[in-house]
Amino acid sequence: MKLIGYFRSSAAFRVRIALNLKGITVEHAFRHLRKGEQSTPDYVALNPQKLVPTMVLDSGEVLTQSLAILEYLEETHPEPSILPKDPVGRARVRALALISAADIHPIQNLRVMAYLREKFDQSEEAAFAWSRHWIETGFDAYEASVAKDRRTGAFSHGDQPTIADLCLVPQVFNAGRFKVDMTRYPTLKRIFDTCMKHPAFDAAQPSKQPDAEK
Amino acid sequence: MKLIGYFRSSAAFRVRIALNLKGITVEHAFRHLRKGEQSTPDYVALNPQKLVPTMVLDSGEVLTQSLAILEYLEETHPEPSILPKDPVGRARVRALALISAADIHPIQNLRVMAYLREKFDQSEEAAFAWSRHWIETGFDAYEASVAKDRRTGAFSHGDQPTIADLCLVPQVFNAGRFKVDMTRYPTLKRIFDTCMKHPAFDAAQPSKQPDAEK
Repeated sequence: MKLIGYFRSSAAFRVRIALNLKGITVEHAFRHLRKGEQSTPDYVALNPQKLVPTMVLDSGEVLTQSLAILEYLEETHPEPSILPKDPVGRARVRALALISAADIHPIQNLRVMAYLREKFDQSEEAAFAWSRHWIETGFDAYEASVAKDRRTGAFSHGDQPTIADLCLVPQVFNAGRFKVDMTRYPTLKRIFDTCMKHPAFDAAQPSKQPDAEK
Repeated sequence: MKLIGYFRSSAAFRVRIALNLKGITVEHAFRHLRKGEQSTPDYVALNPQKLVPTMVLDSGEVLTQSLAILEYLEETHPEPSILPKDPVGRARVRALALISAADIHPIQNLRVMAYLREKFDQSEEAAFAWSRHWIETGFDAYEASVAKDRRTGAFSHGDQPTIADLCLVPQVFNAGRFKVDMTRYPTLKRIFDTCMKHPAFDAAQPSKQPDAEK
């Protein structure tokens, strides 16, 4: 398999963590999003959304969308599992994952920030405030969802990493770039710290990727 | 089970279609989003994101996030299935669903539009252009993904409705409100028309809900 990503992409970061957790070795390729390498015809043929990541299977089949790729990896490489076994628990984990993956990240990714600056003539400061607003709105809900729920353990759900954590950790990295005050989110901070002690998360972080910029 | 929704919510619409397809009868309750009924303490206790839908199970357990609820319904009521059987097909369906559910809808929902008007002082016209831009960006990719793929059938994937269609149809309704020209998307239009002839989709549409406004 080949994963086409970008060191700073939250979505690619999620998939890298899953691959590490499950011990799956893949070839890594890169598209530099700030240089527009996601818009070349050869890449658009693989990923018409012009987003990363894209996973190319050995069969030649192409998978897109990080959450769909995570579910595929879980179905084809079930151990160790990144979803609980019970349907209600699975729904809880997926809902937590979607706070980051649907209701924060798409609203404040590169292309949206570019629209704010170019079409709405907003300053860098206003675009940063926008990002912080959506991150904080999502994290407020995430913190409320995990702080007092007995199903929360060392990780967002129990004592093993799940898809929820795989989406949370990249979003916390992103929050750091926008100066979000994580002391507002003690449970998220505790889970994040636990995750980052895990080698699968640590090795997947942006600064440790081959395409990382210093 | 009880589904708490809002007639015009794309996310609640997705869940209504799934319930109809699977023949699951639930109690329906409503929160009027434009009147702020999603922000009352009793609702926030159920759904800290202050979004709809929320599903309350007979056990009292609470599910949020429409895609997580759809996966729960599929796992607990597998027939008729709204996901294909093969992992690559499932990944394709989930990726198509996420074009609508992650990369269009969250960027142009009520709360985001409110921010554009209130914080960025944008006109109604500019906010509409924003919505159209993200819908068209997503639909361009969706059309490219389904137009020439042999796996596309009467529906987005094969000849039975899947989660992809459950997310596409509400997004096409939403696109109509923003005057998106659907002739640009002949395959999406064809799939949409096929869906709307299906009673499960037809009965779930906003205008047929008890809380609909004339």
